Amino acid sequence: MNLTLALESSAKAASVALCDGGTLIAQSFQNAGLTHSQTLLKMTEDMLRSCGVKLADVARIAVAAGPGSFTGIRIGVAAAKGLAWGSGKPLRGVSTLRATVSATELPGVLCPVMDARRGEVYNAVFRYDDGLYLRECDDRAVSLEVLADEARNRAVPYVLLGDGAELAYEVFRANHLNAVLAPELLRLQCAYGVAVASLGAADATELEPMYLRLSQAERELTERGL
Amino acid sequence: MNLTLALESSAKAASVALCDGGTLIAQSFQNAGLTHSQTLLKMTEDMLRSCGVKLADVARIAVAAGPGSFTGIRIGVAAAKGLAWGSGKPLRGVSTLRATVSATELPGVLCPVMDARRGEVYNAVFRYDDGLYLRECDDRAVSLEVLADEARNRAVPYVLLGDGAELAYEVFRANHLNAVLAPELLRLQCAYGVAVASLGAADATELEPMYLRLSQAERELTERGL
Repeated sequence: MNLTLALESSAKAASVALCDGGTLIAQSFQNAGLTHSQTLLKMTEDMLRSCGVKLADVARIAVAAGPGSFTGIRIGVAAAKGLAWGSGKPLRGVSTLRATVSATELPGVLCPVMDARRGEVYNAVFRYDDGLYLRECDDRAVSLEVLADEARNRAVPYVLLGDGAELAYEVFRANHLNAVLAPELLRLQCAYGVAVASLGAADATELEPMYLRLSQAERELTERGL
Repeated sequence: MNLTLALESSAKAASVALCDGGTLIAQSFQNAGLTHSQTLLKMTEDMLRSCGVKLADVARIAVAAGPGSFTGIRIGVAAAKGLAWGSGKPLRGVSTLRATVSATELPGVLCPVMDARRGEVYNAVFRYDDGLYLRECDDRAVSLEVLADEARNRAVPYVLLGDGAELAYEVFRANHLNAVLAPELLRLQCAYGVAVASLGAADATELEPMYLRLSQAERELTERGL
């Protein structure tokens, strides 16, 4: 057994997963709109108990480290750090966008988009090639119009994933661009993807969330010249 | 809100899901090999609590009624009947094979196969057409050789799903037949598929499990002429 416990709370939905290598043993997912600070650790406890697994049996903890909702990411990373520190297990942080494509096994050009509000999405583009997802650009905050312009020059339609997929799909259609929505079960970022993506990642001694943008509080402070 | 609570325990894995119409609100899945009689109702209770939903808020209960493991189906149907009777909610039973394809949103010819032991699989074949899965044959117990022979005459490779997918994939390859394994997250039967499939099903006043074959105990009794 080579167990990874993974946490994902980068947006409205939250999920936790237990994997043995790349094989899914258990996953709990909820998108009921409750705050992650109340649900995430309880879901973890319930899932481990339903599998008869103790935290001590786990080889490593993995977490979606961003980009995503500031509050969601903070809760996920803090919970994962607490679990890792408390149990003495190594901790791995992975890009939320990389995690979103890792669980899909879909061919083509994968385009995860997370709603970043203010007309922007968090995004990266990956190309599936012989069982691997090759990254075509860094994680970024980008406007939907720029994303649609880029897609116009591609021979293959984008496969849209992430909690901003439907938003992007509407903009693509309004711009007369072909795009495919990933199946609903593969569309949203999930902890299984975090676990799979973490298998190739290095252990983090100092894991920091990756926000890509300033938080609203920081932005307002900057605007006031503070 | 139009909530369906769905249970799936037709094979080694077990899952419970909560859907609003066809939209997934929550799902818990475990494939740790623990007995469903210990895990299924507790997973249901944990999932509803993590969503802040009570059984009284649910509009209907749905369950995978077979084919599948005799013990698994019995536990799932009994638990679902208990929940429906206790809460006064309508109960819907759906074919496990129909449920397996319902959540995938994959195009092509879908071929769910569940390991029925003794060289056979439970199987049906569905063709995706304009958002619908059209059934091409009834649920049946069939040998892998017969299934491979049928596939030989198809223009499009089968998409294999279900807990017997890898088993069938090996037989197809040994017979030099093209086939595609569905992505792991879509491959196993799950409660989300049961919920989606149940939306088109009628309420069951007298739900009976669908086993397709005699149980081992019944078979041995028959062989002894009893």
